[in-house]
Amino acid sequence: MKIMLINGPNLNLLGVREPGVYGTETLNTVIEKCQALCEELGAELVGVQSNSEGEIIDAIHGAMGVCDGIVINPGAYTHYSYAIRDAVAAVKLPCVETHLSNIHNREEFRHTSVIAPVCVGQICGFGGDSYLLAIRALADVINRK
Amino acid sequence: MKIMLINGPNLNLLGVREPGVYGTETLNTVIEKCQALCEELGAELVGVQSNSEGEIIDAIHGAMGVCDGIVINPGAYTHYSYAIRDAVAAVKLPCVETHLSNIHNREEFRHTSVIAPVCVGQICGFGGDSYLLAIRALADVINRK
Amino acid sequence: MKIMLINGPNLNLLGVREPGVYGTETLNTVIEKCQALCEELGAELVGVQSNSEGEIIDAIHGAMGVCDGIVINPGAYTHYSYAIRDAVAAVKLPCVETHLSNIHNREEFRHTSVIAPVCVGQICGFGGDSYLLAIRALADVINRK
Amino acid sequence: MKIMLINGPNLNLLGVREPGVYGTETLNTVIEKCQALCEELGAELVGVQSNSEGEIIDAIHGAMGVCDGIVINPGAYTHYSYAIRDAVAAVKLPCVETHLSNIHNREEFRHTSVIAPVCVGQICGFGGDSYLLAIRALADVINRK
Amino acid sequence: MKIMLINGPNLNLLGVREPGVYGTETLNTVIEKCQALCEELGAELVGVQSNSEGEIIDAIHGAMGVCDGIVINPGAYTHYSYAIRDAVAAVKLPCVETHLSNIHNREEFRHTSVIAPVCVGQICGFGGDSYLLAIRALADVINRK
Amino acid sequence: MKIMLINGPNLNLLGVREPGVYGTETLNTVIEKCQALCEELGAELVGVQSNSEGEIIDAIHGAMGVCDGIVINPGAYTHYSYAIRDAVAAVKLPCVETHLSNIHNREEFRHTSVIAPVCVGQICGFGGDSYLLAIRALADVINRK
Amino acid sequence: MKIMLINGPNLNLLGVREPGVYGTETLNTVIEKCQALCEELGAELVGVQSNSEGEIIDAIHGAMGVCDGIVINPGAYTHYSYAIRDAVAAVKLPCVETHLSNIHNREEFRHTSVIAPVCVGQICGFGGDSYLLAIRALADVINRK
Amino acid sequence: MKIMLINGPNLNLLGVREPGVYGTETLNTVIEKCQALCEELGAELVGVQSNSEGEIIDAIHGAMGVCDGIVINPGAYTHYSYAIRDAVAAVKLPCVETHLSNIHNREEFRHTSVIAPVCVGQICGFGGDSYLLAIRALADVINRK
Amino acid sequence: MKIMLINGPNLNLLGVREPGVYGTETLNTVIEKCQALCEELGAELVGVQSNSEGEIIDAIHGAMGVCDGIVINPGAYTHYSYAIRDAVAAVKLPCVETHLSNIHNREEFRHTSVIAPVCVGQICGFGGDSYLLAIRALADVINRK
Amino acid sequence: MKIMLINGPNLNLLGVREPGVYGTETLNTVIEKCQALCEELGAELVGVQSNSEGEIIDAIHGAMGVCDGIVINPGAYTHYSYAIRDAVAAVKLPCVETHLSNIHNREEFRHTSVIAPVCVGQICGFGGDSYLLAIRALADVINRK
Amino acid sequence: MKIMLINGPNLNLLGVREPGVYGTETLNTVIEKCQALCEELGAELVGVQSNSEGEIIDAIHGAMGVCDGIVINPGAYTHYSYAIRDAVAAVKLPCVETHLSNIHNREEFRHTSVIAPVCVGQICGFGGDSYLLAIRALADVINRK
Amino acid sequence: MKIMLINGPNLNLLGVREPGVYGTETLNTVIEKCQALCEELGAELVGVQSNSEGEIIDAIHGAMGVCDGIVINPGAYTHYSYAIRDAVAAVKLPCVETHLSNIHNREEFRHTSVIAPVCVGQICGFGGDSYLLAIRALADVINRK
Repeated sequence: MKIMLINGPNLNLLGVREPGVYGTETLNTVIEKCQALCEELGAELVGVQSNSEGEIIDAIHGAMGVCDGIVINPGAYTHYSYAIRDAVAAVKLPCVETHLSNIHNREEFRHTSVIAPVCVGQICGFGGDSYLLAIRALADVINRK
Repeated sequence: MKIMLINGPNLNLLGVREPGVYGTETLNTVIEKCQALCEELGAELVGVQSNSEGEIIDAIHGAMGVCDGIVINPGAYTHYSYAIRDAVAAVKLPCVETHLSNIHNREEFRHTSVIAPVCVGQICGFGGDSYLLAIRALADVINRK
Repeated sequence: MKIMLINGPNLNLLGVREPGVYGTETLNTVIEKCQALCEELGAELVGVQSNSEGEIIDAIHGAMGVCDGIVINPGAYTHYSYAIRDAVAAVKLPCVETHLSNIHNREEFRHTSVIAPVCVGQICGFGGDSYLLAIRALADVINRK
Repeated sequence: MKIMLINGPNLNLLGVREPGVYGTETLNTVIEKCQALCEELGAELVGVQSNSEGEIIDAIHGAMGVCDGIVINPGAYTHYSYAIRDAVAAVKLPCVETHLSNIHNREEFRHTSVIAPVCVGQICGFGGDSYLLAIRALADVINRK
Repeated sequence: MKIMLINGPNLNLLGVREPGVYGTETLNTVIEKCQALCEELGAELVGVQSNSEGEIIDAIHGAMGVCDGIVINPGAYTHYSYAIRDAVAAVKLPCVETHLSNIHNREEFRHTSVIAPVCVGQICGFGGDSYLLAIRALADVINRK
Repeated sequence: MKIMLINGPNLNLLGVREPGVYGTETLNTVIEKCQALCEELGAELVGVQSNSEGEIIDAIHGAMGVCDGIVINPGAYTHYSYAIRDAVAAVKLPCVETHLSNIHNREEFRHTSVIAPVCVGQICGFGGDSYLLAIRALADVINRK
Repeated sequence: MKIMLINGPNLNLLGVREPGVYGTETLNTVIEKCQALCEELGAELVGVQSNSEGEIIDAIHGAMGVCDGIVINPGAYTHYSYAIRDAVAAVKLPCVETHLSNIHNREEFRHTSVIAPVCVGQICGFGGDSYLLAIRALADVINRK
Repeated sequence: MKIMLINGPNLNLLGVREPGVYGTETLNTVIEKCQALCEELGAELVGVQSNSEGEIIDAIHGAMGVCDGIVINPGAYTHYSYAIRDAVAAVKLPCVETHLSNIHNREEFRHTSVIAPVCVGQICGFGGDSYLLAIRALADVINRK
Repeated sequence: MKIMLINGPNLNLLGVREPGVYGTETLNTVIEKCQALCEELGAELVGVQSNSEGEIIDAIHGAMGVCDGIVINPGAYTHYSYAIRDAVAAVKLPCVETHLSNIHNREEFRHTSVIAPVCVGQICGFGGDSYLLAIRALADVINRK
Repeated sequence: MKIMLINGPNLNLLGVREPGVYGTETLNTVIEKCQALCEELGAELVGVQSNSEGEIIDAIHGAMGVCDGIVINPGAYTHYSYAIRDAVAAVKLPCVETHLSNIHNREEFRHTSVIAPVCVGQICGFGGDSYLLAIRALADVINRK
Repeated sequence: MKIMLINGPNLNLLGVREPGVYGTETLNTVIEKCQALCEELGAELVGVQSNSEGEIIDAIHGAMGVCDGIVINPGAYTHYSYAIRDAVAAVKLPCVETHLSNIHNREEFRHTSVIAPVCVGQICGFGGDSYLLAIRALADVINRK
Repeated sequence: MKIMLINGPNLNLLGVREPGVYGTETLNTVIEKCQALCEELGAELVGVQSNSEGEIIDAIHGAMGVCDGIVINPGAYTHYSYAIRDAVAAVKLPCVETHLSNIHNREEFRHTSVIAPVCVGQICGFGGDSYLLAIRALADVINRK
């Protein structure tokens, strides 16, 4: 089983950016924990981070025929990138949307995800643990197929 | 560690009600799986199901000083029960909102949760597994305190 | 054929409450007329009245395997109880929504029913006769199955 | 007692048009059933069908001093013809709005009737039976005057 | 100078329809007063009344090359007939919109005119006198050209 | 008969301000024409111009027991001064709202008058002639009382 | 004079729940102060607290023929319970809505009361004193009848 | 192959009406070009123009069993005629909506078509050429069946 | 203790203006009752009435260092005067907003106060008694400081 | 004549992505057909496909002084890329927007194009043929200059 | 060169009012700095402060033929004074709108300026420096004429 | 002091693109003027221009630890790029948003900036001078730290 983990815009600054909201762990620490969990679940993790909408779409396309599913934190693109939504719908791989913060108790514009409707499910609010829960959820979905 | 699992309106019909949307597992089967996971995590599970908004509020109040956190699937009350929201905010226990279905790809009115803003986080879309992920997430939150 | 007739909040005050809007017949008088019609149609009538959203949901669940259809006047819950809507959808019995007054010429908030979309149809504006028309309509739907 | 039955745009295609939504009975069959019921109720039925908003208004005006009430299925005009609404209000005859389909579980724009606020009541969702119920309801209203 | 006076849907019932709102004068009486004023102003009046949107458009087209301006009471079409609006804009004749009642203190939907933006001006609220004022206003506009 | 003519903010600049929209006549010229018409109608004209909402309210109050009616061009206050609206409603004198330009073909915010609902009627779009028509309309209303 | 004091959802936690918003007095302390004031005013106080919408409606119905007026803090039901609104309207007793906090400087959803339109008046923002003011106001209304 | 070309309200004035927006070709010239193209494509063209919503619906009904498809420019009815939409849906013929002007860079109300959702596609902005493109597009759709 | 009582636009007409809505007491009578209550509470009352938004702001500024709190009935300015809101927020004195009528059962635009969010609380619906309750409430707030 | 054909995000997956919506032809097949038509029309086709908003803007800029016009299918960027809109407006080349599917019968968010207002026209709903029609339309526009 | 600097409601309290938002400099200090800059730029500064909408309009009118441009901080009037907007548009002098605070990160209602559309530009967020930047900007605009 | 100047999409066409709106100076000329001013202020200017949202985010990240502040003209991304907003918030450098044109008197969609709430302030409407004012404003903010 191969899982792609996509981190969208500004997540490269994790641990640096607004630690009150996003915590003090860096993206690398979070990814290492994800890799540890993947090994435990007998899965391989492919990590992608980009601030560019186009590169995220390219990465999703690249997962076709290569990965069994996608965990994606689309960052702020969550709220307006219909192009990423179309990419997820197009590749027909199970996809889990995840967020470090609880997007429902922040600014109004963060309450809506245009990508979630084409995902299997959504997990948010648990800091770096959101990713671990998302991987676990996705692995179950892939196994159950 | 003691966790309260609250199931809101119509969830007593799980396995019977719209299996295309909610799956064929009954609520008992799901709760048994939750109890098994709780044991594994060294936690105790207190289960409550009610179709009544008032009883759900009473149950939340009853968790004060008794439980360490709450996993709640508020069913349709998710979308309008500001009274349940106030109850969750009042008891000051960590609370995880969860849904069997992906509320973001169903009717417009199901896209908004009035309760999520006072929860730690939200997990939806993974059928009965949503509950297991929520328990796991909540246990981590309680442990980290 | 067995039909459940559910009367929601404040309908116990029928004949007392705003007679200019709802008429002077009491709920008992209306139910007696309904029973007479049911006998005529070879049907049995089970009457329920509650001011509690939860009890109305319980009643709807209780109709499963017992009744062939439901006539419901959800009172003010018509306009916001997605939980009652889910109950009606869950039990998969034909349901007819009815109102004594013409909800379309009253306050703006009364123009929308969140329950009607999961019913067979809706009848409103004919006072106590709305119930008789609803029973007649439901009996035809049940017979035609 | 004389009742005018008005069928609005596209109802001449009944039985032909989208039978999944509107059923397979033709307009003639429905009208014959209505006439049979009218006879039973000691009433006379005047049938009008037109695809033109202006002709429907003319027909409503023509009912003044001739008919005792109107049953109207305004078709798609239901949702925007304030001119038909004004006609119904002007002639001061009791009017029952009716629809074959349940307008509340179809497209958003069909949920609102601009004509219902000036009618006695509204009946929808019972196919051809909606008409029979509407005639019965109207006859009662006329008799009770 | 030749002026077309167009009366839209339901205005043929003037004096009959809701006298509390529209007064007790019939359309004929109002038109006679208009003719008297026209004579006084050295103008000829061409009167048209129709309940049909299409016929009103035809009449407006017919005014091209024949009349010097139009006074129109579009009745309920005021609020949604973009087709009449386009007709007025197309014929490039000065047009004055008028209403018997004060449309701004009635139902919400009557507050907006989709036709007024392509007219010279709008006069409402003075009963039959609205027409006389509109003719006077239009005559001045035509004379000033 | 005594008529108060109130001109709101910026109307003192008439003839100077945006002549493309409001014409080149000065306010004095317009008022002189109004006085001439009043004489013709056997009425007396009291003119008030103020850029201050409070002074306009004071003027309206001052008309009680002194004038028989009011013609008001509230300028931009038309669109938000609920305080002027309340003043007009309070003094219970017939009031005609008027505008030089056709407010319906200008910016969106100018399409709505919060004052018109408490006036007898509204006249707009005829430049200085709007005032003459308004005086004529008001005189008729006063005479008819 | 007999006054019913109804406390809605989560008010049983008063003094416990968010003291920054609601103060540190318990519900019992507040009620005792209310009883003292009632004695002073020669009135009797009947206290009801419930987290259930249905029970609150039952209590309001129970006040008919027993109490002379109602003071109600509907808690979060303030913002959506049209069923409680209908109950207040139905019993035709003078009712004063009251809130501990100033609902106008909190979350958007708390700015609107669906119950206030059928009450005599509304008092909010003075902590426990809101209740005392409401009782005083209600007593005056009852005495003045 | 037989194609019906329907021109809605005010299109009879083509070449006369607002040439800056719609061009200077008359409707006849455009239809002649359409006929020439139809001949080239081995198709027959049936032309209809009406300012009446009802007649346009009649024409669409008349195409059943006679024509293989429809090209329609509904004029201003595009934006509100749900009745024409229902007619198009009812006859189950492939239909192409077309406009001379680019409706997306004109007034807000012209940006939405209520008819397009039941058509095969929409072509706008190319003056008379829009019709030729629409015929070509429709012929391909018919041929591909 | 010194309290400023500010009465906004049109309140000088109290007792004259719409007595059905506002009662028959004049502003002087109400103020005398307020002064009597103030004496009873050991407070001094400074009364201000103005129809001008600017003068009301000046009065609020003038209360700084002179009064201990403000009772304000901003009249129609309640609904749009962000400038008065800013004045109240700027002077940092406790302020109670009050209304004679129940603003929640009148026109839609009266349901929202832009000033209440910067006040301690709001009292409405009790006629002249609203002022007495507001003074009492304010005195308690000042005493508790 | 030189025409640039721009394909936006996810169109590289044509034939792979949701064939039920977009058909089974690959992008290469569609482009070949476009080239064939261009040759027929004596034009040269420059093809660009990118998933990146920035690259699409660069391509549009690159067309200045090189191409005579642009055919663009902006994919999901259609609905929110004001940056692409500005690019099209900036280069002042005639541009035709095109879509494979009928965007008007899909999700609500696809009904609005922010780019169409700065294009000559829009063609949608004819699968790969939309492109051929767009090229034909653009060639005519260029030729007519 | 002569520049009018207009300060709207509550700005007389600068340095006193909410120093966390507006800083601790008084209005006099800010104006002195503005005068110093004006001298440096060879300009004369005319300062006006008023809490009254009407007086601000009068001041703007007074600038005609006297000043070469206006710097205005309309305070809360920014968000609703269409009357001030009309005054600015009427005098046809270049006007720069300025704010001490960043109106875009405060309450929702402060995000929109109804006056900015008729100004040359807007500068906000730099405390007292906003005024200096505005003067500099305006001087350049005047010089460039 | 080191300042980053970021120019977003289409600004590379400055002087070419819509000179009526944006002026005829090229981007290079504007940047040269900015460099001259920076030298005068003892600052260094780092210029970035990109049409790509991702590259702009990368540039903002690159300013961390290198520059003391940012001047940004986000072009059309101003109105929807929550990702750029998050980048600005993340790097915690003072940022000034600037625009050549007055965004408040152009299309509705240009009136709102999603980036301004995380900036120090906003300057718009002064052509190339907007940049100079923004640099001056930013230098002051940096110096004052």
